[in-house]
Amino acid sequence: MAVQKPPQPAPGKPVPDAGRRSERSRRAIYDAALALVAEVGYPRTTVEGIAARAGVGKQTIYRWWSSKADVLLEAFLDLGEQAARAAGQEEYAFPDTGDLAADLKAVLRATVDELRDPKYDAPYRALAAEGVVNEPLGRVFLARLLEPGLQLYADRLRSAQDAGQIRADVDPRIALELFVSPLAQRWLQRTGPISHEYTDTLVDYALYGLLPR
Amino acid sequence: MAVQKPPQPAPGKPVPDAGRRSERSRRAIYDAALALVAEVGYPRTTVEGIAARAGVGKQTIYRWWSSKADVLLEAFLDLGEQAARAAGQEEYAFPDTGDLAADLKAVLRATVDELRDPKYDAPYRALAAEGVVNEPLGRVFLARLLEPGLQLYADRLRSAQDAGQIRADVDPRIALELFVSPLAQRWLQRTGPISHEYTDTLVDYALYGLLPR
Repeated sequence: MAVQKPPQPAPGKPVPDAGRRSERSRRAIYDAALALVAEVGYPRTTVEGIAARAGVGKQTIYRWWSSKADVLLEAFLDLGEQAARAAGQEEYAFPDTGDLAADLKAVLRATVDELRDPKYDAPYRALAAEGVVNEPLGRVFLARLLEPGLQLYADRLRSAQDAGQIRADVDPRIALELFVSPLAQRWLQRTGPISHEYTDTLVDYALYGLLPR
Repeated sequence: MAVQKPPQPAPGKPVPDAGRRSERSRRAIYDAALALVAEVGYPRTTVEGIAARAGVGKQTIYRWWSSKADVLLEAFLDLGEQAARAAGQEEYAFPDTGDLAADLKAVLRATVDELRDPKYDAPYRALAAEGVVNEPLGRVFLARLLEPGLQLYADRLRSAQDAGQIRADVDPRIALELFVSPLAQRWLQRTGPISHEYTDTLVDYALYGLLPR
């Protein structure tokens, strides 16, 4: 599923108009793809529909992407990069202040804000729902959109483990699910409201445990 | 969303043939509904399609249920009751042996077995996926299929709390998510394999916490 990026002006070769046009088309295609999947769902989203809404030819989309799944995944990755830039963060950076609880809470609070933002919620929900029943898409969704984020949690827990702050026998890849998965389930299956207070509580319960200390 | 049950023979009024015919139709309708939603997904499942597959008239379905959502929810509830009977359990009973960890592990292991059974997996997955994007259906799915089970976990944690086995400041409704939600997410989003060892680990992490004791 290789993705060709829109042509960028080669260094020292000024083709600013073509470059700007491409960038404008790419942005219009992403916006159209996200809006469409949010409105009609994944199965009824088509490359033709995205092209029509973006005001470009279908062949423009196929020049850069091989399928609607490709366009949507790129559109989501781009949305994530935009959010990170807007928050002044480096993409895929996880805080490591030495205070594990504070770092986990900060990242989970930012995720709550993202999930509550309609710009993310509707299209992300449509893609997640399709991934539940469409295993190939689900696996790509997981590998490109979910797993990189989960890996950052695992790395942060591992660094806490190295500092003796987490028990040595704990598997970080499982441990992170104690606070990440409850938020995911509340959001996906509406099993409860999501808030900063809620995710703070999850972190406290996971770190200290439910048994008396 | 009131559901009329198929007519049962009134006490002392022997209409065994009609009763058997109704029971046979009801069973055929449940089986058809579960098979169909697993094969074509929720949006393309219709009352007409269920009727055709079950070999009954559409009006037979509408006599007992008001919509395809109703039929499917009843079919799932029935599947759960069958599984409970097959396991020799009372429906909606949660073990309380006094050993909280053992009780939680036993129930989660049974859930893993159920989720790995293709008879449950495909139709349950189709309904869960639809609930992610179809909020009214998702809320009914939650209230009728998910919430009663979650309530049993909460009750068991509350009884452990009364026995001083769980910290008094813990909210049982949130605490249960530390082991229930990771299993749900691995199953729905395929974020990892599910097994008895995995759910045992979740219970241990949640009870003891990730920090050194």
